[in-house]
Amino acid sequence: MLHFDNDYMRGAHPDILRRLSETNYEQSPGYGMDDYCAKARDLILRECGMDGCGEVYFMTGGTQTNATVIDALLARHEGVLAASTSHVNVHEAGAIEASGHKVIVLDSPDGKMHAGAVARYLRDFYADDTFEHMVAPGMVYISHPTELGTLYTLDELNDLARVCGDAGIPLYLDGARLGYGLAASGTDVTLEDIARLCDVFYIGGTKVGALFGEAVVVRQRGLLPHFFSIIKQHGALLAKGRLLGLQFSTLFTDRLYMRISEHAVRMAIKLKQGFLAKGYSMYIDSPTNQQFFILPNSEIDRLGGVATFSLWGPRGDYETPVRFVTDWSTQESDVDALLDYLSSRL
Amino acid sequence: MLHFDNDYMRGAHPDILRRLSETNYEQSPGYGMDDYCAKARDLILRECGMDGCGEVYFMTGGTQTNATVIDALLARHEGVLAASTSHVNVHEAGAIEASGHKVIVLDSPDGKMHAGAVARYLRDFYADDTFEHMVAPGMVYISHPTELGTLYTLDELNDLARVCGDAGIPLYLDGARLGYGLAASGTDVTLEDIARLCDVFYIGGTKVGALFGEAVVVRQRGLLPHFFSIIKQHGALLAKGRLLGLQFSTLFTDRLYMRISEHAVRMAIKLKQGFLAKGYSMYIDSPTNQQFFILPNSEIDRLGGVATFSLWGPRGDYETPVRFVTDWSTQESDVDALLDYLSSRL
Amino acid sequence: MLHFDNDYMRGAHPDILRRLSETNYEQSPGYGMDDYCAKARDLILRECGMDGCGEVYFMTGGTQTNATVIDALLARHEGVLAASTSHVNVHEAGAIEASGHKVIVLDSPDGKMHAGAVARYLRDFYADDTFEHMVAPGMVYISHPTELGTLYTLDELNDLARVCGDAGIPLYLDGARLGYGLAASGTDVTLEDIARLCDVFYIGGTKVGALFGEAVVVRQRGLLPHFFSIIKQHGALLAKGRLLGLQFSTLFTDRLYMRISEHAVRMAIKLKQGFLAKGYSMYIDSPTNQQFFILPNSEIDRLGGVATFSLWGPRGDYETPVRFVTDWSTQESDVDALLDYLSSRL
Amino acid sequence: MLHFDNDYMRGAHPDILRRLSETNYEQSPGYGMDDYCAKARDLILRECGMDGCGEVYFMTGGTQTNATVIDALLARHEGVLAASTSHVNVHEAGAIEASGHKVIVLDSPDGKMHAGAVARYLRDFYADDTFEHMVAPGMVYISHPTELGTLYTLDELNDLARVCGDAGIPLYLDGARLGYGLAASGTDVTLEDIARLCDVFYIGGTKVGALFGEAVVVRQRGLLPHFFSIIKQHGALLAKGRLLGLQFSTLFTDRLYMRISEHAVRMAIKLKQGFLAKGYSMYIDSPTNQQFFILPNSEIDRLGGVATFSLWGPRGDYETPVRFVTDWSTQESDVDALLDYLSSRL
Repeated sequence: MLHFDNDYMRGAHPDILRRLSETNYEQSPGYGMDDYCAKARDLILRECGMDGCGEVYFMTGGTQTNATVIDALLARHEGVLAASTSHVNVHEAGAIEASGHKVIVLDSPDGKMHAGAVARYLRDFYADDTFEHMVAPGMVYISHPTELGTLYTLDELNDLARVCGDAGIPLYLDGARLGYGLAASGTDVTLEDIARLCDVFYIGGTKVGALFGEAVVVRQRGLLPHFFSIIKQHGALLAKGRLLGLQFSTLFTDRLYMRISEHAVRMAIKLKQGFLAKGYSMYIDSPTNQQFFILPNSEIDRLGGVATFSLWGPRGDYETPVRFVTDWSTQESDVDALLDYLSSRL
Repeated sequence: MLHFDNDYMRGAHPDILRRLSETNYEQSPGYGMDDYCAKARDLILRECGMDGCGEVYFMTGGTQTNATVIDALLARHEGVLAASTSHVNVHEAGAIEASGHKVIVLDSPDGKMHAGAVARYLRDFYADDTFEHMVAPGMVYISHPTELGTLYTLDELNDLARVCGDAGIPLYLDGARLGYGLAASGTDVTLEDIARLCDVFYIGGTKVGALFGEAVVVRQRGLLPHFFSIIKQHGALLAKGRLLGLQFSTLFTDRLYMRISEHAVRMAIKLKQGFLAKGYSMYIDSPTNQQFFILPNSEIDRLGGVATFSLWGPRGDYETPVRFVTDWSTQESDVDALLDYLSSRL
Repeated sequence: MLHFDNDYMRGAHPDILRRLSETNYEQSPGYGMDDYCAKARDLILRECGMDGCGEVYFMTGGTQTNATVIDALLARHEGVLAASTSHVNVHEAGAIEASGHKVIVLDSPDGKMHAGAVARYLRDFYADDTFEHMVAPGMVYISHPTELGTLYTLDELNDLARVCGDAGIPLYLDGARLGYGLAASGTDVTLEDIARLCDVFYIGGTKVGALFGEAVVVRQRGLLPHFFSIIKQHGALLAKGRLLGLQFSTLFTDRLYMRISEHAVRMAIKLKQGFLAKGYSMYIDSPTNQQFFILPNSEIDRLGGVATFSLWGPRGDYETPVRFVTDWSTQESDVDALLDYLSSRL
Repeated sequence: MLHFDNDYMRGAHPDILRRLSETNYEQSPGYGMDDYCAKARDLILRECGMDGCGEVYFMTGGTQTNATVIDALLARHEGVLAASTSHVNVHEAGAIEASGHKVIVLDSPDGKMHAGAVARYLRDFYADDTFEHMVAPGMVYISHPTELGTLYTLDELNDLARVCGDAGIPLYLDGARLGYGLAASGTDVTLEDIARLCDVFYIGGTKVGALFGEAVVVRQRGLLPHFFSIIKQHGALLAKGRLLGLQFSTLFTDRLYMRISEHAVRMAIKLKQGFLAKGYSMYIDSPTNQQFFILPNSEIDRLGGVATFSLWGPRGDYETPVRFVTDWSTQESDVDALLDYLSSRL
């Protein structure tokens, strides 16, 4: 079977497992107070161009990270502005609301929050006489890449950061698949840009070669007071915090995080070109490790015999959108085999 | 000044104040355990055609009632399906989310939840492989009249109740202005219909002639276990519960609740006919005590000198929607005076 | 029947009902934006010695007020320090926890929070290496009179305010029965003292002659940012806010609040002296409108035939503590009748 | 340095790391739907004597597990009964309250919940007229071993289960260090007993040789409806759920979980005997992997130069309680070295 259904189906990049084995008998303090976490923080901040400023915290998964960060950023009466398709709105089983905050939704066909739409929402909100009876927009949530595999341009990020800055509300970026966005061909957004423009963001490990783990970067020290206790309160504090520090220090040594991402993107683009060459059309044009095509149902059934991938929405009468995903472990020979097997539509 | 800006700007129908005075020195147990509450419960259940079954609880305001009932009806992982324009989505400052529940929004141009749209949402939800990662639709919230002054037909209510029943989720009706819906000309929905078709609903007092107070009717005993404690937990338990019982027993004696509503609707329809006769058009066609017109800004400014009313949305370049509201205290002479003052557009 | 079971069993002082009737047809804006609320705020702040500073908000009941204020004062990771017998710990059905905050309990035989115990708790808390894994003490809750009818001295309040100030956490006073504390014979604590020493407190109306209502006084403007929205979110915003403003402006005109309180305390002290004269002993020595005695069960049964009062704890084998309460409506003749009927134990 | 400060300072038992490496390239579905989780569930249920019934869920840490299970077990108006020293009351940063539930505390000098005290609490609660104004005791939380290293006897557990059963409330056991309790010399409580007597409990992995992970065992299928979604909502659903399944299937193969526990307990008892032999006294008598002594401050300072361990409370004037902990990785030679270095007090 050729596996393209997700980027968290295998274990971890072998370097990470090796480091876990090498250090297994070392004894470290818990809860992120160890040397590996310290080293990972340094490496990450350096890569972000934030030497000597900012903060880094580690958690184990994306929903947990989103719920904890958003809860820490918002006041009681505030909600988070997010795209209708966003993970926080759709796929977190109400984790944001469970800590008392509304997800205020803006429609977005491409999964992005556009500066103009946010500015308009903020203007209309405060123009409404009854705004104090409504949930105040207290921050903006974006993901990069988005849930649809699309990317912000640097201009778009700049505009969004300016709108947030003018309104005095933080901009938070969910980077569950951040590496694939940074490694995408054609992107003009760097990690340093993100670190400069977002008040808080996280660098996803779970989907980018780690066993598990997300690294939350806070631009300004003190922005999240008592965040350690809030992490604990959310059940998000790993006892053996060292496991997270070790993984991220490995990922940020010798560009491993980017090398993993670049490999996956290369495999994804090869896949895309193969599908296009055989006459299929894209459902969404994504430059990242997620590729979306429209396939005839008959071809879906054929491919299903040799490969795993996801339907992206309900099965249509004749054709259906599908998603193929690559990661650190995707073999080029598997991509070739899949493309060989794919019928030509021409 | 001629007042048409809301239906909760004056005190209470004089019968209610009189009863408060007459009984002021009586001593009753607190928290709704008194004889007036018992009597009001009986009167309401009889009017609902629910003699000998069901339950009635009293609270002081609409947002409080919605938040408490919805919290009691939903399980942890569930949210409430509601129209995008609904009070729970827009104007409760996040009270629903504050108790941990998502408002799952369906777009609705007329403020109503249509059975077809709800059925489609439910079908698509459970057809999605990842539905367990999403907030389960645990109940349907409607308002009657809606926030836009529109009304359900009996067919629409029947269909909605059937869809909810098939899905095994309760249907809850917010009746903040219920009287005006029941008294509307052309409606085929009675209080008995509502009591038969909704699992829970409330009869609004605050906006229909009481000083304050809402009466929650539960069709089936035991549907809301420990609801007394949940009311208390929401800070919604009035110490002198008698005040609520007395008001509702007065409102449900000699048809006072309906007489108040009929008067307000008659005044509203007179207003509507006057506006139409002078050549203005409706913004929304409402048969209730709320009337919505589109007025030229110049006329808005003229009228503003003699009458109070609300802009319904941001002021346009040339014209703007406005809302006029009547209630128990609206004088026919005030309606006449307003219409006399209104310029003719013909 | 002679009624001594509580101070919220009758309606309201007649002056309040009269004012409600007189102003019934006036039309005012909702949600506390009206002139009566403005006037009540001025009167209260003047009485507090806070002319020109501070803020006043109105809510309808005690639990609601406590839950809303505490939620507004605390950060996510903080809890409220309170006596084990306090209303927030025992009798609010978990309203504090429902908004996410722990009630951190200190044992207290007399219902008071003593400065020494609070200081010790704070010192031990921050001396503990693991304090960031624990709920931070974010404020102190006291009631005056306490749930046991006891009162703070000015020295005690001063000490408590100093400990809170040193720790940088607010001191909040629940004044559900504040009038009776201020009117108690022997107290050296004035309303001005409370306004000076507490960051937030409320003046109870429900139990002191109003139909319902509590007035929250905030010493420093801006201490509770966006409190209006938080009140709304808690379902604690009365549509006809005028009802609260009118009641409190009446209570704070011509010393009505204090006259009501003084009368009730005088009746209570007469009751106490009568019980003592007949040889009964106090269960708790209270100088307020609540009086606690120990009565033989046989006498409890006798009295129960002519008067209402509460058992204060489980019925003992031979004798049981009981509570008698007076209020604005207590007739001196009823006190006399009760004392006449009481058996002598001498 | 000789390390005795905790049981989560090193990585994992080497068998677990080895299995992670061996299976790293296998591709499995996420969220616990994989074969390793299925296998671990079978192994655990078999060990519990629950073949063919019950349910098992995996989470990553103790606080997370407690907060999620308790939230799932309780209704809105309920709280959890727990010892004053319990982890949920003291060391979870308010995670229980953050999901809206009160921790109802019973004082307990030995860290245990005694059946008599629970029965008394329940009886007094429902005997109180005002119980509907109070948080209902909805479940009982115990830990085994307790936070003080003490153990329940089978009689005690039986009694507690009977009291809970009579009251119709679930009994939940936090087994963060369960293995050490089962392996303790002198205990008469087996895993099967726990599985039979507790409605829900968890088998701790983090502190018993796993990298991380806790296995929640539910006696009766369906007791926790929609628990998957509730886990997700708590941010407690690991994407690569396989990591948990693999660890627990390894721990429950060839008695590894018990062998780890037995080794740690043997080391702990050797330590205890050494301390006693040199004339020191126990602070608490624990038969588990945690040992508590009272040491003179001078000896604490001496030992601190060669070994790590924890002060157990504030440093006293002359002597202070201390805790030494063993685990899977404790070398007997380290125990010997520590005892050699320890001064004799005789």
